[in-house]
Amino acid sequence: MQQQFFNKSLSELLRLIESKQVTVIDIVEDFYRRIEDREPRVQAWQYLLDVNSYIEEYESQKDFYDKSILKGLPFAVKDVIDTKDITTTMGSRIYTDRVPQNDAACVTALKMAGGILMGKTVTTEFAYFSPGKTNNPHHPDRTPGGSSSGSAAAVADYMVPIALGTQTAASVIRPASYCGTFAYVGSRDEFSLRNMQPLSSACDSLGIFANHLADIQLVRRILQHAKSPIQQNNLTTDTPKFAVFAGKELFEAEAVVYEKLALTQQHLVENGFDYVDLALDELMGELTEHQKTIMAYEVARNLFAEYSTGQISQQLAELIETGFAISYQQWLDSTRRVAELKSQLDELLETHQVDFILAPASPGIAPLQTEGTGNPFFSRAWQILGYTSINLPLFYLEKHPLGLQIVGRRHTDDKLLTLAGKIMSIS
Amino acid sequence: MQQQFFNKSLSELLRLIESKQVTVIDIVEDFYRRIEDREPRVQAWQYLLDVNSYIEEYESQKDFYDKSILKGLPFAVKDVIDTKDITTTMGSRIYTDRVPQNDAACVTALKMAGGILMGKTVTTEFAYFSPGKTNNPHHPDRTPGGSSSGSAAAVADYMVPIALGTQTAASVIRPASYCGTFAYVGSRDEFSLRNMQPLSSACDSLGIFANHLADIQLVRRILQHAKSPIQQNNLTTDTPKFAVFAGKELFEAEAVVYEKLALTQQHLVENGFDYVDLALDELMGELTEHQKTIMAYEVARNLFAEYSTGQISQQLAELIETGFAISYQQWLDSTRRVAELKSQLDELLETHQVDFILAPASPGIAPLQTEGTGNPFFSRAWQILGYTSINLPLFYLEKHPLGLQIVGRRHTDDKLLTLAGKIMSIS
Repeated sequence: MQQQFFNKSLSELLRLIESKQVTVIDIVEDFYRRIEDREPRVQAWQYLLDVNSYIEEYESQKDFYDKSILKGLPFAVKDVIDTKDITTTMGSRIYTDRVPQNDAACVTALKMAGGILMGKTVTTEFAYFSPGKTNNPHHPDRTPGGSSSGSAAAVADYMVPIALGTQTAASVIRPASYCGTFAYVGSRDEFSLRNMQPLSSACDSLGIFANHLADIQLVRRILQHAKSPIQQNNLTTDTPKFAVFAGKELFEAEAVVYEKLALTQQHLVENGFDYVDLALDELMGELTEHQKTIMAYEVARNLFAEYSTGQISQQLAELIETGFAISYQQWLDSTRRVAELKSQLDELLETHQVDFILAPASPGIAPLQTEGTGNPFFSRAWQILGYTSINLPLFYLEKHPLGLQIVGRRHTDDKLLTLAGKIMSIS
Repeated sequence: MQQQFFNKSLSELLRLIESKQVTVIDIVEDFYRRIEDREPRVQAWQYLLDVNSYIEEYESQKDFYDKSILKGLPFAVKDVIDTKDITTTMGSRIYTDRVPQNDAACVTALKMAGGILMGKTVTTEFAYFSPGKTNNPHHPDRTPGGSSSGSAAAVADYMVPIALGTQTAASVIRPASYCGTFAYVGSRDEFSLRNMQPLSSACDSLGIFANHLADIQLVRRILQHAKSPIQQNNLTTDTPKFAVFAGKELFEAEAVVYEKLALTQQHLVENGFDYVDLALDELMGELTEHQKTIMAYEVARNLFAEYSTGQISQQLAELIETGFAISYQQWLDSTRRVAELKSQLDELLETHQVDFILAPASPGIAPLQTEGTGNPFFSRAWQILGYTSINLPLFYLEKHPLGLQIVGRRHTDDKLLTLAGKIMSIS
């Protein structure tokens, strides 16, 4: 039987390549076999480089790739991220033929580290709600979630080891929960967003999908152009402290979400984590409303040209009309209030020495496709705070994945990734 | 004698058009005559739409323009701002043929308000230090300042009534001081920066050049997609309070700068303004150093692709190498410290009810071209704070313009513009 590579971690694949047990081409061909097998059902790709072109690219610069960090292994990016000479549609019929002249900075970083762009993954229209063609890999009649639908599905289904996405409301964490993969959302301003189409600069973050936490850490370091791997040892204590945000007063999630949340809370405490009971609902409720105001205001001003064409979905047009009805003063009031609330929450977490917050990642398992891409409630507040978050693919309910997220203060990304590792090691 | 329009304010031109005393084409032709006369000497334009194409565009959509806010009058934008189907070089020889598929959001806003893009103005290479071809309109052997060289020169020389620029260190205020025009730098996040090439997202701001303050206010409202003009009446008191930042301990400006600063301070006090003596040097000095660290770190990560081509100037390559030598942790330490210093300064200004800070706009008059585009010291700190600032073209020293700037806290832009009007009315 042929050896399988597609479900291995990037780190494991790199080790196999370095020890000459396998060639890059063997691995790449295995990923393409997987895609051939699965793509007709999942439809994760907006554009896919054909296998011959991939191998040609690899062989034409073999020396460079052999000496590089990623050795010529594949990565994928969401189709709102510009890619040089490759169509970037933003999920919009306006842009079916739009071919950027530059790579986004995140794409440059991965290419320069020896990654090869395997393709572009499906996004909802302009990373908002109107869905693309992608199906949930576990259930074709379920949504993969949005807006990073294709990145979540392609990674969860082992078609590519790593993929980038973007999150403005809940576009990374929610699809990761629905598809069953790790996903990390970087803090605000953590990475360059050059040549990524913005939706709302006050809320936009870059995200990384992978099936292994170590792969996320590796990609994060590459995006930072860091010279060496970070020392994870001293980032947290043996008894990390956490709070829980369930939001029961604010939003009705499925019962199973609260059940798994409580179970996980208990499990963490039993394994040496310290739980602190903090009342977060009022703060979070207010932040969520301000996120909606600020996002709508900014989306309207970013997508005015597209709105004017009349070629956008009804859902997006409504958001833009809502946004234009919001005045500068309302936007400013919300922006100022968010700064106050952020100070309050930062201080609260600081005072109680809270290392992370445990929270639902999605309101339940993936809804039916007919019901849309799911509700972004559980990430809106973190997004306007610019906090970092990670989906932990902890549960399967009759084959339906369900994640929980952990959230950290802005720029505590390395610590949060270390904590994610700790949690997974006892799960 | 033919009537002159090029030196009138936008508001005045709009009034003349509405009262049918003059046609848009009369005015546009006058601007083109001015350009024909002056451009050989000033070299402000990277790209200029020819007059026939301009008039053709106007006539092809005459109904739209006649009903619009700007009536088909011209505007210009700095060549780091993307323009659909029009070359956007970013002042780099890498991009002499780069033709964007989309307008930047600010360009869309002006076009939708009935402005016609007359052309692209010269920028230094990627809005950093390496100069373009532009000369100071008052003195061909002097620099117009950078990086918004062409926007400052074109507006100051009456070739176009309004132009957009960008500021990361001092790229709007400094050239405005050297060329002798008003220029306004928007607070951080005040406007959409979609499809503008970023240099450092922590420091980048959009700026507006005009010879009349009312024109800046009008353009600001258009960029906000505001439905109505703002009520300026209640924005300030009769006795506005100001502090002064001279920075003598930190940076040696020309003696005349301190002289004019002291003179202006005295003049304001004599005219009912309240002066508060605040010690700002220590804060400003530290902020300036953090701005340099953060900017270099971010520029390196934004311009890595261009750096890798080997086709950039030595000056920019050095900045990028400096940036890559700065670790994530150093960037983070600076970012956090800036947040603390911003809180301190916000509080200090709040406590003393300071409405604005008066400060030098440039270290002196425009240096000789051979000496570069001038030092950005007097804006770096405001940029990392995300504050708003305005160059007031107050002085001429033997035909060399010299401005002073006023600075306001983040998102006090409307108030600052009103204060600028108050100051000019007594100057």
